[in-house]
Amino acid sequence: MDYHSMEEKLKNPIKQAKVTENMSVDQLIHAIDGCAFGAGKLADAVDIYAEMLSGKSTSFFGLAGAMVPAGMRGIITDLIKDGYIDVLVTTGANMVHEIVESMGLHHYKGCSECDDIELKHDEINRIYDVYLPEQYFIDFEEKMKTVLSDIGGDTISIRELMTHLGDHIDDKSSILKAAADMNVPVYCPAIQDSMIGLQAWLYKQTNPLNVDAFADMREMIDICYEANDPGALLVGGGVPKNYIFQSMLITHQEFNYAIQLTMDTPETGGLSGASLDEARSWGKVSETARSVTVHSDATITLPILVAATRSRLAGR
Amino acid sequence: MDYHSMEEKLKNPIKQAKVTENMSVDQLIHAIDGCAFGAGKLADAVDIYAEMLSGKSTSFFGLAGAMVPAGMRGIITDLIKDGYIDVLVTTGANMVHEIVESMGLHHYKGCSECDDIELKHDEINRIYDVYLPEQYFIDFEEKMKTVLSDIGGDTISIRELMTHLGDHIDDKSSILKAAADMNVPVYCPAIQDSMIGLQAWLYKQTNPLNVDAFADMREMIDICYEANDPGALLVGGGVPKNYIFQSMLITHQEFNYAIQLTMDTPETGGLSGASLDEARSWGKVSETARSVTVHSDATITLPILVAATRSRLAGR
Amino acid sequence: MDYHSMEEKLKNPIKQAKVTENMSVDQLIHAIDGCAFGAGKLADAVDIYAEMLSGKSTSFFGLAGAMVPAGMRGIITDLIKDGYIDVLVTTGANMVHEIVESMGLHHYKGCSECDDIELKHDEINRIYDVYLPEQYFIDFEEKMKTVLSDIGGDTISIRELMTHLGDHIDDKSSILKAAADMNVPVYCPAIQDSMIGLQAWLYKQTNPLNVDAFADMREMIDICYEANDPGALLVGGGVPKNYIFQSMLITHQEFNYAIQLTMDTPETGGLSGASLDEARSWGKVSETARSVTVHSDATITLPILVAATRSRLAGR
Amino acid sequence: MDYHSMEEKLKNPIKQAKVTENMSVDQLIHAIDGCAFGAGKLADAVDIYAEMLSGKSTSFFGLAGAMVPAGMRGIITDLIKDGYIDVLVTTGANMVHEIVESMGLHHYKGCSECDDIELKHDEINRIYDVYLPEQYFIDFEEKMKTVLSDIGGDTISIRELMTHLGDHIDDKSSILKAAADMNVPVYCPAIQDSMIGLQAWLYKQTNPLNVDAFADMREMIDICYEANDPGALLVGGGVPKNYIFQSMLITHQEFNYAIQLTMDTPETGGLSGASLDEARSWGKVSETARSVTVHSDATITLPILVAATRSRLAGR
Repeated sequence: MDYHSMEEKLKNPIKQAKVTENMSVDQLIHAIDGCAFGAGKLADAVDIYAEMLSGKSTSFFGLAGAMVPAGMRGIITDLIKDGYIDVLVTTGANMVHEIVESMGLHHYKGCSECDDIELKHDEINRIYDVYLPEQYFIDFEEKMKTVLSDIGGDTISIRELMTHLGDHIDDKSSILKAAADMNVPVYCPAIQDSMIGLQAWLYKQTNPLNVDAFADMREMIDICYEANDPGALLVGGGVPKNYIFQSMLITHQEFNYAIQLTMDTPETGGLSGASLDEARSWGKVSETARSVTVHSDATITLPILVAATRSRLAGR
Repeated sequence: MDYHSMEEKLKNPIKQAKVTENMSVDQLIHAIDGCAFGAGKLADAVDIYAEMLSGKSTSFFGLAGAMVPAGMRGIITDLIKDGYIDVLVTTGANMVHEIVESMGLHHYKGCSECDDIELKHDEINRIYDVYLPEQYFIDFEEKMKTVLSDIGGDTISIRELMTHLGDHIDDKSSILKAAADMNVPVYCPAIQDSMIGLQAWLYKQTNPLNVDAFADMREMIDICYEANDPGALLVGGGVPKNYIFQSMLITHQEFNYAIQLTMDTPETGGLSGASLDEARSWGKVSETARSVTVHSDATITLPILVAATRSRLAGR
Repeated sequence: MDYHSMEEKLKNPIKQAKVTENMSVDQLIHAIDGCAFGAGKLADAVDIYAEMLSGKSTSFFGLAGAMVPAGMRGIITDLIKDGYIDVLVTTGANMVHEIVESMGLHHYKGCSECDDIELKHDEINRIYDVYLPEQYFIDFEEKMKTVLSDIGGDTISIRELMTHLGDHIDDKSSILKAAADMNVPVYCPAIQDSMIGLQAWLYKQTNPLNVDAFADMREMIDICYEANDPGALLVGGGVPKNYIFQSMLITHQEFNYAIQLTMDTPETGGLSGASLDEARSWGKVSETARSVTVHSDATITLPILVAATRSRLAGR
Repeated sequence: MDYHSMEEKLKNPIKQAKVTENMSVDQLIHAIDGCAFGAGKLADAVDIYAEMLSGKSTSFFGLAGAMVPAGMRGIITDLIKDGYIDVLVTTGANMVHEIVESMGLHHYKGCSECDDIELKHDEINRIYDVYLPEQYFIDFEEKMKTVLSDIGGDTISIRELMTHLGDHIDDKSSILKAAADMNVPVYCPAIQDSMIGLQAWLYKQTNPLNVDAFADMREMIDICYEANDPGALLVGGGVPKNYIFQSMLITHQEFNYAIQLTMDTPETGGLSGASLDEARSWGKVSETARSVTVHSDATITLPILVAATRSRLAGR
């Protein structure tokens, strides 16, 4: 770290936030951008994301956590439709719940303090304060059978499977359909670890279906090689974060923008909570990259980040 | 817990959030109020706080954490000025930093990843990513000497000391001045655990100053006895949370509204992270109270909560 | 939840822990087993794990987080050797670092507060307070080339790839070797999201290598179908937790024992922090299962859990 | 931060832990002392605490959190009896529960997932998974009345009140009695924020009782001035951490040893989670102090730390 003089250290007074009625989200972000702790970091995140999306940056989006059941699906879909996501890496679970929603089925607002045995007897599955009827997985199975039936016997990649799913969805709010329509690749490295994987495997017992575990890599690495001024928004950590960083790492390109929205902290050493400075030691994030981690619930910070960034992009 | 039928359990579909440019903060809250996890809880918090402030509720505010250094001071001051806080309970540290700001001195935006030894040699004290020159504590000492000099020899309570401080501040952004002007009592039970306490003690070595540790209790308990439909907004936990809840507890009144903004979780058993359900077993929070805990950085959630609530109150 | 009388609620006084010099780990666990919070939960975990391992339970082990770089490798290897793990599900990263260690290379104790740019220039990669020279990944590449060269052109599963790797390791401390020797299957659903996956893909550019993403499922599901009184110890959450629970779920068997060692909490809705009660609503964990989550650093709780459990098993 | 060569950075290989049956706690600590993350830090904590207690260090102990209800009381009492604590700073709540236990009353092991309304109707107060009958506070009131009755009308400090309480306790497991017997001062700056404060205030309505809020300071500061090679073990953060650090700060002495056992992390800027490096910028902890923070449940780490440290002290 470079030495900074005392004057440099004391050149930016904390601005006390002024909050009024009828502020826009972006005005609120401006109101807190001279604040410290999470407030200042969220304001930095908006600044970085707006710069990243307003330029020519190839934009990666890592989506972990139960964000679709929580109600964040439309935010992702709209970002894809508007060209703000070039590559989506996510978990199988998010894609399962995305398909369930695309079938016109819903998740339900429940209670995190409840009797899980009673829920079980009601055949309701719980995800914190979200309820999902077990029946929906049977409906999901039917949907998957139909969609997989015209996939053919050629070896395909997981990304191609995701595109195929998107092509068979008829719902304008769908992440997978928007991605298929916009030619945005969706990677889902741990697809077998989901109901999609399970249904694919069941289908495969009696039908040809060849999904190569490693077939995505050339495509993903090519994207990384050719990426322009690459940037990443990482919601949660997990496999999406690692896969995005690892793929860029082997190209010897580096991310010039990186934003993490997560509750995980670095102390236990897991990747999900690892700092973006740590990522610099690996060359995943460049030495001069603009980067910030906002330690707060992503169901709160993602909508704010997107709303404020959209205001700035509209104002260009 | 009462049994709910399967239909009741599945009556509220999660609404997928729609986020657009130029949304107001309150529109954003409406956009996420059918979402789950922290998003849904923050929307609940706005709904509860708006109901609490729009009625006749006696409004308690617990302020822990380093919220003043972080830039949240003006938000508190404005809530007091507008009559939205009837009782403030806080920490000595927040009041020290409030007085420093009221002297026209600033906190500075620094860096949380830094060389603390270098900072020490520069005589800069660090609070996460906030820097404060050590010199300011010397200025603070002078201020305190002046302010304490006309306090007299009668035994006073800590609350009276806080009012006295507020009366000697000439800064329209000051929490203590606004509180003194609005006759809002400020309680600070652990005042000795702060630079205010230290200066008071130093002054006391050569001057009369009698601050009775228990003298606030009658006043605080009387407020609790007479409180109308009481509500509490708790930022962080700590002494302010406990003192507010304990004082209400002995009156056998109970809080009908309770909102917690905190990153602490219940698992380690400390009061700061304790759930508001736990508070019901004690009778601190009433059986039918509207209550919610938002587990997220309060420097993010407090400005949002206040901005959205103010919009609703203005819309009445 | 069933109603319990006041007498039932108050039948177990908290036992104040007595801690003395030269206690064994198991004596310490007995000393805290009447305590509350994490202490009581860790004591419960020992009790559950000892019951699970002393019976005929089919024992699943989920290993997420950077546990091998942190120094937990030998603990896993020894559990496998002694027959205490029947199925291991882990992350690609843990297996990469396991192979690096098996090559006689080391991870190094570093510092979490450091200059990551300096580390980058030194070609050292950081994992919190662990350092790893970048050169080791080149050595790892060579190792992988050799090991993959005799794998042949048949389509294999990821588990078979793991077994193949284990068969080519000559290190008595190796997890993969012990697993191969003991016929313990190692599943690694997100293998492409690791340097193993990357090397496999590079090898595949010029050599036959067909790894079917879904080929593990029959085997894993068969194990779940045939599992006797199944139990799971989950270190961290992530893909291993989900894959273990999902596979059991579709068999309509359920876990009768479940232990989680994690720092993640439920509030953000992610699976890693989800409670084991939530898992009951899905039927992943049985209604009457013995289960406990210990919210504490797993590099601390895992060694204690294993040491105390081993003492009890030896005492049978 | 000083530059370290690549060789220096890579001089300490991570030692993979070996865990066997019948290990002593100290053997376990030795087994993990070459590990990373929390394991390595806990081993460091043992090393630091053993050095601190085996020398002439003046030993401060900060006790926050609900440690007495959780069952950690006897550990503190025994440390006092054996001369390992020179100054105890704690919360009113811990002292209330200590007095309850000293009356032969118990806390009870309950359940954190329960019906708090049912508990309320049973007149049982909950602290996470600890239950306490409300009746005990009535018994506590009687005890306090008796104890306060011979306190006299002189102005006393909070510390003197704590000593007076200890002198009136007849229970060999009592923290306050052990402290009184051993002449260990117990400071409790926020005493009004507890049932002790409440009872003292009630008593004061009809009897003379003058407790000066600032009267402890000279004594505490004198101790800090005269402290030899000072060291601090901080369980949780809160007022005890701040009061210990603040008192030392104004003496211009600094802590040469500092250990924190806490689940709080630095990101939200609160003092409880603040790093010990941050404390160096203030001069609370010396530049060359041995210091470590273990981010894990203190009901787990405190018994381990004490057991292992005691083994080492016995082995001298």
